[in-house]
Amino acid sequence: MTGTVDTELVRREWILRARPSGRPRGTDVELVGTALGEPAPGQIRVRNLVMSVEPYMRGRMGGEATYAEPYALGEPMLAPTVGVVSWSDRPELPIGSLVLHEYGWRTESFVDPSDCRRLRHDDLPAALHLSVLGIPGMTAWVGIDRIAQVRSGDVVFVSSAAGAVGSTAVQLAKQRGAVVIASAGSPEKVSLVRELGADAAFDHHEGPAKDLLRSAMAEVGATALDVYFDNVGGEQLEAAIRVLADHARIALCGMISVYNSATPVPGPNNLLKLIWRRARMEGFLLADHLDARDAFEDEMAALVRSGRIRPVHTEFAGGIGGAWDAFVGMLDGAATGKALVPLVPST
Amino acid sequence: MTGTVDTELVRREWILRARPSGRPRGTDVELVGTALGEPAPGQIRVRNLVMSVEPYMRGRMGGEATYAEPYALGEPMLAPTVGVVSWSDRPELPIGSLVLHEYGWRTESFVDPSDCRRLRHDDLPAALHLSVLGIPGMTAWVGIDRIAQVRSGDVVFVSSAAGAVGSTAVQLAKQRGAVVIASAGSPEKVSLVRELGADAAFDHHEGPAKDLLRSAMAEVGATALDVYFDNVGGEQLEAAIRVLADHARIALCGMISVYNSATPVPGPNNLLKLIWRRARMEGFLLADHLDARDAFEDEMAALVRSGRIRPVHTEFAGGIGGAWDAFVGMLDGAATGKALVPLVPST
Repeated sequence: MTGTVDTELVRREWILRARPSGRPRGTDVELVGTALGEPAPGQIRVRNLVMSVEPYMRGRMGGEATYAEPYALGEPMLAPTVGVVSWSDRPELPIGSLVLHEYGWRTESFVDPSDCRRLRHDDLPAALHLSVLGIPGMTAWVGIDRIAQVRSGDVVFVSSAAGAVGSTAVQLAKQRGAVVIASAGSPEKVSLVRELGADAAFDHHEGPAKDLLRSAMAEVGATALDVYFDNVGGEQLEAAIRVLADHARIALCGMISVYNSATPVPGPNNLLKLIWRRARMEGFLLADHLDARDAFEDEMAALVRSGRIRPVHTEFAGGIGGAWDAFVGMLDGAATGKALVPLVPST
Repeated sequence: MTGTVDTELVRREWILRARPSGRPRGTDVELVGTALGEPAPGQIRVRNLVMSVEPYMRGRMGGEATYAEPYALGEPMLAPTVGVVSWSDRPELPIGSLVLHEYGWRTESFVDPSDCRRLRHDDLPAALHLSVLGIPGMTAWVGIDRIAQVRSGDVVFVSSAAGAVGSTAVQLAKQRGAVVIASAGSPEKVSLVRELGADAAFDHHEGPAKDLLRSAMAEVGATALDVYFDNVGGEQLEAAIRVLADHARIALCGMISVYNSATPVPGPNNLLKLIWRRARMEGFLLADHLDARDAFEDEMAALVRSGRIRPVHTEFAGGIGGAWDAFVGMLDGAATGKALVPLVPST
């Protein structure tokens, strides 16, 4: 269960050099190579297989505290990563086991055992543990079941429905018996979300969100929304509030429409409707729901194995060197489903 | 239990003549006098003692459906009213009993027994059944207990705290053991809400809401809000969202800052914070909580009798003829506490 550390290895990693204002630029970060060195006592070494590029990383690049610690200048851009243990003296984390940690974007990581988790469903591809079985998948599951409390027959609207969270939310809402309306950012993405089971779908670029949403609702014979799973904020949030049903629930999961804005974006002008409709709008973070992780993983692994949930990924090219372009592309909507950066071709 | 109806009596009542756009005008309504006539079979007659002028009546004057039916043009402006039964053949509603109904603004009402309720705590003044023991008081109680779920030690911010709902919300939050910060619209109102128990209070006209709220929080040593009881929307809502604690609750009760606007008012520009703070913002209406009415009335009557809750009223002069000026004055902030129009001097 132990091994020899090759201290000659070079580790390549992304370092934050400047805090972006508005759209991040390539000069905000730098890819550097350093000698791998030796793990600190108690640490294991992980050869990373596949890394995540995450919308919330944009927030951590800014200096202001959000819900996650800002990255320090001169320090690595940390991100969820799946790797294989390449050196360990811990029996519970044997060499060769698959682990999830948040010490990416790097080719190799030294990880405290308390900061990583051995993956239980390791017969499934590594990438799935960063998508449907990982943070985005569980975020969708918490939002649909715990926050929005989707029930059979509910009319559910999911925005950014071709994204990592949205594509899972659409499919989970269908599993729960809902009628699902979805929005996405291109005709191709609209086709995809229909394939995933959305009963109606629209490209949010094709007109005012309120008109597009109304048309989609008419297509499925719905007059009001019981649930809005919000990944974008802005105009689509306002459009959804217009047509809420009594006792509707809005699960606030993300606001990609405002992340990149250097100035504050006005909110929906119709919050009074939340009173008239006795509606609930609630933000949530996965960190509050880790008690449900095993239950989630077991259900989701079964749904994936049986084909009832289809993972949706975009794998960016270039290995470790491609992470920055992948990140910017993801923020610009270039990714469909979970945006991933494979580090070894076999992933 | 029966009596003789004097059909010669003239009933005076307010009729809606035009739907206002923006600020209501005197030409939107007309005070008319008509012969009282006879009650329809099964109806009782009520001599009204005190009438309410309510913010939500502004919404019902507009043609658009809100949560309450719009008033019809040419029909009366209906409002909550307490009166004494002056004719009845119903043993459960004897002549002389005190009842609450929504057939005001009128001097006399014929009321279906199913549309009125005999008041149980009729040893207390009639006006209280329109304030702390009535809709505003129960609205505060539902908002504090059921929606915001105020617990001992919570930091609670109440806006429009000298209003009918707000003045009760402040006192109830104190009863529940909270630290209370309050805002109101004049120095006199600020003094009042401090007398009611608010630990800190500010006049929202004195500067940007975010600065005033920060100062008030500093005064009580609070760094974040666990609860915001929102009666106004707009700038104060945005200011509250800036400083929410994790898992904070916003009870959306009213948005007096936007009722009179003819054009949509942009919402708070920081809803993203609802995600970071995992906060819940929920609108509510009393109609969903009538199951709790007896429990509420019994607790509130006891709190009032023991002096732990102090009713706050503004009684407008002029009897039935003064209702319109009272209504407009209330919308303009002229009322402290519940705005009432007594119809007989004894009230």
